[in-house]
Amino acid sequence: MTLWVETIGFTAAALTTLSFVPQVVRTLRTRDTRAISLWMYALFSAGVALWGLYGLLIGSWPVIVANAITLVLASIVLWHKLCETPESPSG
Amino acid sequence: MTLWVETIGFTAAALTTLSFVPQVVRTLRTRDTRAISLWMYALFSAGVALWGLYGLLIGSWPVIVANAITLVLASIVLWHKLCETPESPSG
Repeated sequence: MTLWVETIGFTAAALTTLSFVPQVVRTLRTRDTRAISLWMYALFSAGVALWGLYGLLIGSWPVIVANAITLVLASIVLWHKLCETPESPSG
Repeated sequence: MTLWVETIGFTAAALTTLSFVPQVVRTLRTRDTRAISLWMYALFSAGVALWGLYGLLIGSWPVIVANAITLVLASIVLWHKLCETPESPSG
């Protein structure tokens, strides 16, 4: 694989992982999670945890590290969503 | 690679891709994107597009298909966030 193809892969991984930072910052700052879907963050966090497990099983450190960081960030948003006072519509 | 390791990988991919469905449903239903970070969806969509390009370059159909679906879903949320009336705080 050429270097620029690998660079595209690493850039993609960095963007999808670090994209959750502004969401975490916004959630911590505003404590507003009403527009955020509980199911999205529950399913996404489960998926990212499985990606991390997959990384462990195939021995891929980039997969493990990227998904560990994403799991921490997504879990912060999920936690705040779970602490939200009940309101409707849910989803 | 054993079958169950591949199954974990496919399950992880399915969960992280399909997790955006409930967010899209909620956003289309409520038209509320205030708690959602514009920067998250901008960076995430760019990252997913690069993942798709990476899949094309390495000839991996699962990477292409999973990221194409995710890009469509994330773009719907991003579009509604961009159409949101101005308010503060942004992020």
